[in-house]
Amino acid sequence: MAIVLGDNQYGKAETHVVRVVRDTARHEIRDLVVSSALRGSFDDAHLTGNQSAVLPTDTQKNTVFAFAKQVGISSPEQLAVALARHFADDVDTVSSARVTVEEHLWERAVVDGAPHDHTFVQSSQEVRTVAVTVEGGRTHVLSGLTGLVLLKSTGSEFSGFLVDEYTTLAPTTDRVMATSVSARWRWSSGFSGTDDLADHDHAYGEVRDVLVSRFGALHSLALQQTLWEMGRSVLETREDIAEIRLSAPNRHHFPVDLTPFGLDNAGEVFWAADRPYGLIEVEVRRDEADADRDASGPAWRAVPGFL
Amino acid sequence: MAIVLGDNQYGKAETHVVRVVRDTARHEIRDLVVSSALRGSFDDAHLTGNQSAVLPTDTQKNTVFAFAKQVGISSPEQLAVALARHFADDVDTVSSARVTVEEHLWERAVVDGAPHDHTFVQSSQEVRTVAVTVEGGRTHVLSGLTGLVLLKSTGSEFSGFLVDEYTTLAPTTDRVMATSVSARWRWSSGFSGTDDLADHDHAYGEVRDVLVSRFGALHSLALQQTLWEMGRSVLETREDIAEIRLSAPNRHHFPVDLTPFGLDNAGEVFWAADRPYGLIEVEVRRDEADADRDASGPAWRAVPGFL
Amino acid sequence: MAIVLGDNQYGKAETHVVRVVRDTARHEIRDLVVSSALRGSFDDAHLTGNQSAVLPTDTQKNTVFAFAKQVGISSPEQLAVALARHFADDVDTVSSARVTVEEHLWERAVVDGAPHDHTFVQSSQEVRTVAVTVEGGRTHVLSGLTGLVLLKSTGSEFSGFLVDEYTTLAPTTDRVMATSVSARWRWSSGFSGTDDLADHDHAYGEVRDVLVSRFGALHSLALQQTLWEMGRSVLETREDIAEIRLSAPNRHHFPVDLTPFGLDNAGEVFWAADRPYGLIEVEVRRDEADADRDASGPAWRAVPGFL
Amino acid sequence: MAIVLGDNQYGKAETHVVRVVRDTARHEIRDLVVSSALRGSFDDAHLTGNQSAVLPTDTQKNTVFAFAKQVGISSPEQLAVALARHFADDVDTVSSARVTVEEHLWERAVVDGAPHDHTFVQSSQEVRTVAVTVEGGRTHVLSGLTGLVLLKSTGSEFSGFLVDEYTTLAPTTDRVMATSVSARWRWSSGFSGTDDLADHDHAYGEVRDVLVSRFGALHSLALQQTLWEMGRSVLETREDIAEIRLSAPNRHHFPVDLTPFGLDNAGEVFWAADRPYGLIEVEVRRDEADADRDASGPAWRAVPGFL
Repeated sequence: MAIVLGDNQYGKAETHVVRVVRDTARHEIRDLVVSSALRGSFDDAHLTGNQSAVLPTDTQKNTVFAFAKQVGISSPEQLAVALARHFADDVDTVSSARVTVEEHLWERAVVDGAPHDHTFVQSSQEVRTVAVTVEGGRTHVLSGLTGLVLLKSTGSEFSGFLVDEYTTLAPTTDRVMATSVSARWRWSSGFSGTDDLADHDHAYGEVRDVLVSRFGALHSLALQQTLWEMGRSVLETREDIAEIRLSAPNRHHFPVDLTPFGLDNAGEVFWAADRPYGLIEVEVRRDEADADRDASGPAWRAVPGFL
Repeated sequence: MAIVLGDNQYGKAETHVVRVVRDTARHEIRDLVVSSALRGSFDDAHLTGNQSAVLPTDTQKNTVFAFAKQVGISSPEQLAVALARHFADDVDTVSSARVTVEEHLWERAVVDGAPHDHTFVQSSQEVRTVAVTVEGGRTHVLSGLTGLVLLKSTGSEFSGFLVDEYTTLAPTTDRVMATSVSARWRWSSGFSGTDDLADHDHAYGEVRDVLVSRFGALHSLALQQTLWEMGRSVLETREDIAEIRLSAPNRHHFPVDLTPFGLDNAGEVFWAADRPYGLIEVEVRRDEADADRDASGPAWRAVPGFL
Repeated sequence: MAIVLGDNQYGKAETHVVRVVRDTARHEIRDLVVSSALRGSFDDAHLTGNQSAVLPTDTQKNTVFAFAKQVGISSPEQLAVALARHFADDVDTVSSARVTVEEHLWERAVVDGAPHDHTFVQSSQEVRTVAVTVEGGRTHVLSGLTGLVLLKSTGSEFSGFLVDEYTTLAPTTDRVMATSVSARWRWSSGFSGTDDLADHDHAYGEVRDVLVSRFGALHSLALQQTLWEMGRSVLETREDIAEIRLSAPNRHHFPVDLTPFGLDNAGEVFWAADRPYGLIEVEVRRDEADADRDASGPAWRAVPGFL
Repeated sequence: MAIVLGDNQYGKAETHVVRVVRDTARHEIRDLVVSSALRGSFDDAHLTGNQSAVLPTDTQKNTVFAFAKQVGISSPEQLAVALARHFADDVDTVSSARVTVEEHLWERAVVDGAPHDHTFVQSSQEVRTVAVTVEGGRTHVLSGLTGLVLLKSTGSEFSGFLVDEYTTLAPTTDRVMATSVSARWRWSSGFSGTDDLADHDHAYGEVRDVLVSRFGALHSLALQQTLWEMGRSVLETREDIAEIRLSAPNRHHFPVDLTPFGLDNAGEVFWAADRPYGLIEVEVRRDEADADRDASGPAWRAVPGFL
């Protein structure tokens, strides 16, 4: 039985580009880490070492920097779409291009009481993400975030669960629930199919607010339920989002037994553990025929793991 | 249009278990980080918060520790298969179970010139990996490794590549090629379908040796070609491996221009860059009808990204 | 010549305690990582293995949790002082105790437009730090921060520097200046010697604001100058601070040469490099006789490196 | 009271240089991460922004690369000494120079059964370290290592310790002891004062072997005792080492209580915890008058923390 080349892709990972808009004294800044992955006619590159079809990854890096100047960065979605379409449409040997972006967010620094024209502070550990796939003439856009760290000091329980011979956990009706949410949402085709990406910044803020609000407002019976409700609220708020996937570690906070020291501990002192942690992953979508929604569809193949 | 729950899974990530076999004075040690992810009848857990079908992740952790004692760890594959089958077969609400393992390797320490009975040194940064999925009565086993860091100080070129308007890279016929290989290989059903997992330790060493040897022996025209040849050699060596996937960052080593200091630099002094880096991903497989080989097949869904 | 035991210390590192104050429906939260290091009569523990003078590190961990309940956490300084005094004063065999704290900051989450009673978001990557040493009846308090990431998109130059045979850098009168500031400041004895630590939260915010404002307002001729001015402003603002030390990597942002692509780049597109980076470290202090200000003084020995 | 500039230093951190020796077909490789820190006449650079005394950090980076070619790398000690002497002796404004090095170790890869001429594998996570300070015409050399991960599955106890009101730990006469050793040793002046650094590679191997052997051979009553004995053995083995400092986290391995599952656990199944961890730090030295041995002496000021 012959041994054959299967799936393959290559690209440049983690080009860190910072774009300053300095048309006025009040500068704007975008700080992106961009990765590209190309598929196409690359059999010879593997089988014989012939590189004539291979656009170097160094060129892909150059293209990121050139596009940051030429087309600008009105949103990370807009740059990612422009880059992915360029690779897929303008490079003959490329049949499919994926561009993923992590945006590191800067705020205008407060200097002597006022927001400053050209000084910025990167206070947030949250990262905004984009994954764009251009394949067969279609553009698939996932927006998202990672590192949204949330904690509820009450309003969370976990009880009534399945018990087997290895179960020692006691049920609780009041616990700390903490997590670091990662999410990706897929825009329905009407939105992502056009070039009207101007509103992505606004949409990002809206989705983030909904995620935080639903996490906070819901009395949680389990992290599964919380994620479902967070996802559902996003889809209810934005008609143009077809699907959202959420991945959330359960960052366990164990109440410390203080009775050996003559102290009670009514939900006041916790040990925050690192590992192991629960990991909950949920997809919430509209109930429709939709080829892109499958985990093996072109949109989701751009990103690792559950999302 | 209704909003519905889509794919979902949950489990306990990164349970770090160390198992000592101390039946004789010459101890053995296994050091594993185990993660489990379950799928099944968990709609209510999300939609209503009813947890009666949910086996707590804390229980999954307990099960890892109990199995480490009860069934032992003759290989990481064997423990992962035992755990995944237990969750899928013995827990009524679970339809599919995935168990992934990272094994951290210890060597017997040399004490006063001789290998010691109960002292170990963890000199290697390489990690051995396993991903097992039990679904629909079948067991899918991926073995692998990550962190295999290799470098060739010559015997590598990159030239004749596609040039476009953004290309500035000069071709080279002699460069440093360095990478950190991650690989996963899928056992053909005859091997993984039985419980005969005893030879996995031997097979692991054999695959690793082939990967290193082929990397070293091949005069490389590109990292793509090197990965293809590495994968092909593995399949030629082991009849029972159906497929291998390789992911390898191109850790660029740029020759430093020393001419401003009156020095030449004929491939002697390099700056080792961190980011950006090329990323090459290749699948090599046998040319046969094989449902598992697809990226969306049950075997590969257990692991993030290309592999 | 005899071989002898020199300096030694031991303790428990990185006890991660989360304290919830839930006296009212509006909860408060403190999230601290606490480390302790003890010195004292521990020669026998090393020389003969006799542990009778050694308070286990497990006990030190327990003490952190117990104190979080018993004495509470009005500020990280207050908890660190209480713990260090306990170890130094109450444990006979301990002559000197150091307690260092990293506080991870949580903000009240905005839920449906209003700050929520018991939901928090950890948006900031900045970490507030404390290092307390109790030795010889005196208490030395360092407050500080790490991870204050700042960037100026203009208003920074670097020129007129020393040129030797290895210098290739071109001078610039307009560059991006970015850094991640770490700082520690030492309270003059009047402040730290008492238990009046209630105002530390306020003081922390004040120092941080001065650091950011001075970084932003100054037209920088070099990062050295910027750090000096930042430190000087802090000492001018707070009479009770005796000294401040600042450590700041110069996170280089290199303008990308876009001329091969027919594009100019007037300070608009930058490559943000990871390594190597400049590292600037500066001490600013009041000009007085002061035993604590020396790097080998008890205050500073509690912390690694320059600060 | 005037505000004045105190201690300050600046330099280039983490220049990653890889040096290939290719005089014959059998290549040699050195992989170093080099940092420099300079002290001197830099008051104006801070106070007025005048940079005329400041050798740019970019130049320091260039110097590392140029020296890697010009003087070569017979050992990391030799390159660090050459660089530090150059900065201190050849740059007028520099009074003191410190150069620290991390060497990442490569082994010759085994290709088809034989060590290969130009293929290397970086299997070890251990890092060899050097810290050199040149000040006042003297050269101070610290050699060391970090990431030496060791474990004993028996032969370690911890009992008879001090018990206070916060102590809950049970004594044990048989536990797992695991750690990741960092060490720095200072050469007596006769050795470091000359340029005879050729034997450092051999000495490094010898010290490492002694550390591992003593860890393994000793029946341990506490990690303190183990570190003391490890350090003492090094000084007994090498007359030219004046002092050694060891820092070792106690990587706790807790036996898992399996009795709820009807299983015993006689030192067989352990949970390996990440945090908190014990941290033990010990200095072992020769009993002589020796200005360098103080923590504030020029040798030790080059390195962060206890070592």
